[in-house]
Amino acid sequence: MTRIVRVGGAQMGPVARSDTKERTVERLIALLRAAHGRGCELVVFPELALTTFFPRWYAEPGEMDGYFETEMPGPATRPLFEEARRLGVGFYLGYAELSVQAAGARRFNTSILVDGSGVIVGKYRKIHLPGHSDYENERRHQHLEKRYFEVGDTGFRVWDAFGGRVGMAICNDRRWVETYRVMGLQDVEIILIGYNTPAADSLSDEPEELRMFHNHLTMQAGAYQNSTWVVGVAKAGIEDGHRLIGGSAIIAPTGEIVAQASTDADELIVADCDLDRCHYYRANIFNFARHRRPEFYQRIVSQAGADR
Amino acid sequence: MTRIVRVGGAQMGPVARSDTKERTVERLIALLRAAHGRGCELVVFPELALTTFFPRWYAEPGEMDGYFETEMPGPATRPLFEEARRLGVGFYLGYAELSVQAAGARRFNTSILVDGSGVIVGKYRKIHLPGHSDYENERRHQHLEKRYFEVGDTGFRVWDAFGGRVGMAICNDRRWVETYRVMGLQDVEIILIGYNTPAADSLSDEPEELRMFHNHLTMQAGAYQNSTWVVGVAKAGIEDGHRLIGGSAIIAPTGEIVAQASTDADELIVADCDLDRCHYYRANIFNFARHRRPEFYQRIVSQAGADR
Repeated sequence: MTRIVRVGGAQMGPVARSDTKERTVERLIALLRAAHGRGCELVVFPELALTTFFPRWYAEPGEMDGYFETEMPGPATRPLFEEARRLGVGFYLGYAELSVQAAGARRFNTSILVDGSGVIVGKYRKIHLPGHSDYENERRHQHLEKRYFEVGDTGFRVWDAFGGRVGMAICNDRRWVETYRVMGLQDVEIILIGYNTPAADSLSDEPEELRMFHNHLTMQAGAYQNSTWVVGVAKAGIEDGHRLIGGSAIIAPTGEIVAQASTDADELIVADCDLDRCHYYRANIFNFARHRRPEFYQRIVSQAGADR
Repeated sequence: MTRIVRVGGAQMGPVARSDTKERTVERLIALLRAAHGRGCELVVFPELALTTFFPRWYAEPGEMDGYFETEMPGPATRPLFEEARRLGVGFYLGYAELSVQAAGARRFNTSILVDGSGVIVGKYRKIHLPGHSDYENERRHQHLEKRYFEVGDTGFRVWDAFGGRVGMAICNDRRWVETYRVMGLQDVEIILIGYNTPAADSLSDEPEELRMFHNHLTMQAGAYQNSTWVVGVAKAGIEDGHRLIGGSAIIAPTGEIVAQASTDADELIVADCDLDRCHYYRANIFNFARHRRPEFYQRIVSQAGADR
């Protein structure tokens, strides 16, 4: 079995509030076909790929339910699954999940991993929700992920798929070292990450260039320090008047970017990810069993915030 | 009290096996005086600054005792402490420590933090020892830190000094996310790191450029992800026939390098480190108390190596 997985990063341009899901799924299908044409067996779509990034607006959570999926696949997304199965191409898809349970409705920022036969083989619910839960007047724009989503309950898992060890994370998770490490400790070989990152900070004048640097810095460090491939895929461009950074990238276990988007539009980037390249660092400089010293790491789990 | 600390990174060129400690301390004093001349109140010297990087040679541990310090200050290092006190400049110094205890001799790869009155206010013993403990024939050069040193017993502490929260780490510690995070969870504002990094890997053809990239990548990510300054200082150049990378750097809490060495020789880099710049990220995107989810991080402490 080959250990080279040809991966497509399917960056998306903006999705307007007025776009129908059917129209957006057509774009995903076009990207999926382009990836198939370039020989990809796995395509990564962004976070919340089916809709505009609605957490920038304040409402009662129930009023946003039109942005959520209650089944997957559902009527709008079924054509994507069918085309994936027809082409034999798997995918990662981010979407807003509404799970109606006995205790009531639960809402998550979710990603799924679908194999080349169109079967969902993994689900992840975002753990590091950024932003805030109430309207904050001092912000230039709102970022209400903590309002519309619960903290995910899946933990950071790694699946045997595509001939390797596949992990998932979503957007802000990529800034947190624990995300990569918990998967690294499960021998992850490729981590798939969709994101929507505003080009402007809501409280400071941080330049967009610095925000792009942070986007790549965290994913490159996460890749190198855990000897894993990382595929980060953006929704980009000016979406309903709010600019999102692009910069989708495929990153080798050396931390080097091997493919990077150069537009803010629908754009496919492709790389041959040799999963065996994870082995060298993992056996040597980052041989966890030989070098890690968990007896000195206790604060990482015993406290959330800083404590002197 | 000002929260701006002017810090000097005192990179050193090689220290030959034949150099006396007295001669090497003269070089440290020259760098200390240069830093004082540029208004620094804190100077960071490299790891194992008093000697050549002796773990590249294989011997019985006791045969290397000449490279170790049994007291600090000792006869050779006392002039450095006296000059620091006279100038009112504090420093970080890395050295090999031989601690003779009732149970026998213990050897550590150690750093100390000395305040502007020449008093040792902090000591750290290196936790992440790279390399191996026995001669390994397949390597182009040896890296016997695990032979000559015990794993440090101090943990990662943070000291109130120089008007802020000061942490220490040594060389290979900087590649490990836990190093920075454990100090970040103690509100660290500046982390001082000395290093000696061979320009060639002992088992692969990894290019020196990639090794320099990793050097900066890990320190920049550690700074940004923990909202802290990082000062990394190398011993550099061709030392007893073995090339060490330089690239000493002072890194802001944004992850940006604000000062960087451009030679492989004794060279001072200087930056004004405004410790209040740690606050913005720490209060927002990296507000640990608000965003971290330790309930999902358990593997980081419950296992050293990977486990599926």
